[in-house]
Amino acid sequence: MFQTFETTANPAQGPARLAALRAVMAAEGLSGFMVPRADVHQGEYVAARDERLQWLTGFTGSAGFAIVLLGVAGVFIDGRYRTQVKGQVDLAHFTPVPWPEVKPADWIKAQLETGVIGFDPWLHTADEIARLEAGLQGSGLSLRPCDNLVDRIWADQPEAPMGRAFAHPDALAGEPAAAKRARLAEGLVKAGERAAVLTLPDSLCWLLNIRGADVPRNPILHGHAILHDDGRVTLFAAAEKFDEATRAHLGPEVTLRPVAAFVPALRTLQGPVRVDKGTAPLAVSMELEEAGIAVAWGDDPCRLPKACKNAGEIAGMRAAHLRDGAAVVEFLCWLDDRLPQGSMTEIDVVTALEGYRRATNALHEISFDTICGAGPNGAIMHYRVTDESNRAVEANSLLLVDSGGQYLDGTTDITRTVAVGDPGDYARACYTRVLQGTIAISRVRWPKGLTGRDLDPLARAALWMAGQDFNHGTGHGVGAFLSVHEGPQRISRVSEVPLEVGMILSNEPGYYREGEFGIRLENLIVVEPAPHLQGGDSEREQLRFETLTFVPFDRRLIVTDLLAPGERAWLNAYHAEVLEKLTPRLSPAALDWCRAACAPI
Amino acid sequence: MFQTFETTANPAQGPARLAALRAVMAAEGLSGFMVPRADVHQGEYVAARDERLQWLTGFTGSAGFAIVLLGVAGVFIDGRYRTQVKGQVDLAHFTPVPWPEVKPADWIKAQLETGVIGFDPWLHTADEIARLEAGLQGSGLSLRPCDNLVDRIWADQPEAPMGRAFAHPDALAGEPAAAKRARLAEGLVKAGERAAVLTLPDSLCWLLNIRGADVPRNPILHGHAILHDDGRVTLFAAAEKFDEATRAHLGPEVTLRPVAAFVPALRTLQGPVRVDKGTAPLAVSMELEEAGIAVAWGDDPCRLPKACKNAGEIAGMRAAHLRDGAAVVEFLCWLDDRLPQGSMTEIDVVTALEGYRRATNALHEISFDTICGAGPNGAIMHYRVTDESNRAVEANSLLLVDSGGQYLDGTTDITRTVAVGDPGDYARACYTRVLQGTIAISRVRWPKGLTGRDLDPLARAALWMAGQDFNHGTGHGVGAFLSVHEGPQRISRVSEVPLEVGMILSNEPGYYREGEFGIRLENLIVVEPAPHLQGGDSEREQLRFETLTFVPFDRRLIVTDLLAPGERAWLNAYHAEVLEKLTPRLSPAALDWCRAACAPI
Repeated sequence: MFQTFETTANPAQGPARLAALRAVMAAEGLSGFMVPRADVHQGEYVAARDERLQWLTGFTGSAGFAIVLLGVAGVFIDGRYRTQVKGQVDLAHFTPVPWPEVKPADWIKAQLETGVIGFDPWLHTADEIARLEAGLQGSGLSLRPCDNLVDRIWADQPEAPMGRAFAHPDALAGEPAAAKRARLAEGLVKAGERAAVLTLPDSLCWLLNIRGADVPRNPILHGHAILHDDGRVTLFAAAEKFDEATRAHLGPEVTLRPVAAFVPALRTLQGPVRVDKGTAPLAVSMELEEAGIAVAWGDDPCRLPKACKNAGEIAGMRAAHLRDGAAVVEFLCWLDDRLPQGSMTEIDVVTALEGYRRATNALHEISFDTICGAGPNGAIMHYRVTDESNRAVEANSLLLVDSGGQYLDGTTDITRTVAVGDPGDYARACYTRVLQGTIAISRVRWPKGLTGRDLDPLARAALWMAGQDFNHGTGHGVGAFLSVHEGPQRISRVSEVPLEVGMILSNEPGYYREGEFGIRLENLIVVEPAPHLQGGDSEREQLRFETLTFVPFDRRLIVTDLLAPGERAWLNAYHAEVLEKLTPRLSPAALDWCRAACAPI
Repeated sequence: MFQTFETTANPAQGPARLAALRAVMAAEGLSGFMVPRADVHQGEYVAARDERLQWLTGFTGSAGFAIVLLGVAGVFIDGRYRTQVKGQVDLAHFTPVPWPEVKPADWIKAQLETGVIGFDPWLHTADEIARLEAGLQGSGLSLRPCDNLVDRIWADQPEAPMGRAFAHPDALAGEPAAAKRARLAEGLVKAGERAAVLTLPDSLCWLLNIRGADVPRNPILHGHAILHDDGRVTLFAAAEKFDEATRAHLGPEVTLRPVAAFVPALRTLQGPVRVDKGTAPLAVSMELEEAGIAVAWGDDPCRLPKACKNAGEIAGMRAAHLRDGAAVVEFLCWLDDRLPQGSMTEIDVVTALEGYRRATNALHEISFDTICGAGPNGAIMHYRVTDESNRAVEANSLLLVDSGGQYLDGTTDITRTVAVGDPGDYARACYTRVLQGTIAISRVRWPKGLTGRDLDPLARAALWMAGQDFNHGTGHGVGAFLSVHEGPQRISRVSEVPLEVGMILSNEPGYYREGEFGIRLENLIVVEPAPHLQGGDSEREQLRFETLTFVPFDRRLIVTDLLAPGERAWLNAYHAEVLEKLTPRLSPAALDWCRAACAPI
């Protein structure tokens, strides 16, 4: 079993640790210190030694940060974690701050008139620090890079992870690593840059066609890399992680060096060196600048090519989704059979689902801790069930299950919300409106050049019309046997990146009522060219999405009369395709269940 | 009759004028000179003396500019004018350039390696010049402010206009001018600014509750103003424009001075002085900076308050729209009666429509030259019919009529596309999809804080699904007895201004097939708070639009089966409201026509 259910932190530990941190802050002459939930790689999953925010505050969410001042400690959390944070931190000592609504600089200025705020330059990007500095300008407040003060007081801080690296075969990667390196090096030469620093683990895994095991859920290798303009790469990672076969797979143009060699290597580069302002730790550019090497701010050169999946990767993702879809249907069939017998808990559901995925004999990992929210727990957007929070699945409620698998050929991420008994007309109407959002994104064709922001309103319009909305983006980028959350592609109000062929995204509108229920419906989709339509504009190039996920939606929760004719037609066609694709993969019982679930409405 | 039909320029005049301009350019040592279609006030309508672009090139569109180099002359035009420009300029001498797709700096660099490009700093904003300079950086090209070289060769250039100014009564303005001045001055004090320069005529008309007659169609006064931080205003405009009553209406805190006093007055101000980077001529900040006065870049302080109409202005707009709607219905009734008799032209249509508006006895002006496009002319987005282009309205076609009136209580802008005989199934399907866009914007409720960009996709989704789209924004801001196009509010892919209560916009999706037909449907709408809905999110504040325009859509062009249930319900409710509101205002024949036009579908 990958998923565990222990409570990893509790509010009681916070106050003493906070007091210890404030003591070292005072000794350093600091009025504040920033504690991000970030490691040097800015990833969503961090190793145990990097769980500083959780260790200090108790908050276990996947995003957020604390700003600890001598008198007050703010825990900044986004819309997904508003509810969760209240149960995880000691509210007498930690103050939840809604973010990004409240800007960190404004919050600090409201608390303090003068003082110096310390931060660890390996845990913050240049962009973050520049924004904060701009916000503090003209006040009596300033920032100062320093050692990590949490590390100083964390006596039993775990060691850095030493997961095994392994080759990702060219057949699944769709392009040999040497070809990728040559292509990206050409881009550096064109830009007049001599090298690029890679600090995102999924960038270097993608570039070198390798994978790792340094954090749970994401098959990534912790390390840094320098891509030189001749296509050679220096990889800084612990040698112990590599067996001989994996080393050989890297090839002679990739040099493996210890992590400790990274900073000295930076300082001997010829400039200009490309650094990503939004993802590289500030320390990287500080080191380069101190050594007199010109920094060329620009995008991590892997980000866009990695986001635009090639034919091999898309074929792998399709295969992984059919395998995973069949497992999820087996699970849903089991759930429907089991629910009327009563006395089932969220942990039972999570355990059963992981079991069906394991039964494929192809599961490498789950792609994140399954979010299984019964009744009101469904409204906690990134809920992770623990032995303490574990709730019985009650009659006449909704059950939200958001889960995914890591397979060698692809990463899945799917959410279905199912009826337990009769959840009532209001819940059905809400479910239908969320489904209308899912369908709108699934069906839309759009003129090439638009961004995810331009599509985001289509996922919400049905909810808006009922005075409703959801406080998260409609979709995130997804890697191919890599991180289940990747950039830069998104369907979101803040996404300015044009959607391009091959980008894989989630399509996951939702609706949440705190204390009552949560609904989310999620498929993965991939951008493809839309064929020309008769009567359409001949000069206008259009794109559309191919849906990768094949699992039925819950017909018992759909109010047919709310659907437009085109929406109904899409749903029936989708269900017909689900049935056709999964039929050869299902057990007899699950096939019966699937046939009923896919009947036209 | 306001509208005239002469051909105001023709391609034949261009080459000789271009040669003359190049001769003075060469004499000044310039490799290029920029000829915008802009006056010092950056308005859409310019006085005859400012029609430099048209005089030089023949192009009569309301937006665009020429960059004249010694070897090539580019005429930059946006999507609306792609077709029109081809018929108006001598294509052997002038090269149409699609803008903003092609950036001026890129175009210049593609033509020339080195040289100096001249420009008149009174006709370009600081933003424009900064963008261009940034684009030319690193090349051998530079910019140089200079006299207007077109004025130097334009022997019979008309004089500046001398239209009469007149008071806009407080009852219609909804707020006394003194209160506006005090409110805005308070904003300056808060920002630590000593004065603001106003160069937009509709800003100073709004601020001082006056109107003018210096350009056709928009009741604006040409002038500049300085708003001081104590609420006093210095207005720079020709004294001859003001009679005693209008001068008295300005009040003692407004000082009227000659236009020639503007620059000297600028040079004696105390800084910081607010200047709008996007609308003030570069010359304003050049003069301030030369005199050592600090420039505070910021928004024209009138723009946002002017855009958010008060209750008095909205009441006036409602009244104007009912009056105007009744006139348009009389016209549509006449049109339907007259069309079967044959041999009618676009000019006949324009003349009849203006006649019905004049018959209200309240028409101050038309709000722009009526766009009346029969058949293929409907695809020319800003088509103005002339004696030469005048086309017969043929059987089995579409007729697009986009028009509006200026009334003392409000400004209207309405487009209807009507069937002439049977235009065929394809045209009906296209019309229905455009109508679906109009309905989507009319019905939508959205969470407060969104911009016009966030709503724009809703107006296009039905077209996108058929492989179609339109190359213009969905809506522009509209003034209250002011400019029919005003900022900053827009419904457009490029609009980043949050929509606020009181903003008036057009809602005008379209569809165009060059050489075949054009469809556009336009209502004016005003942002209002959306009442809470039962079952909606209690904490979520929403906004919606109230529709101001009441004129039926052409039922003969609607494919009912394409409409979703909610769309059909909206249309029937709208038509019922049209009938109810217009019934007391229509002639018996028009009432009969309107009853039939508003019957439920």
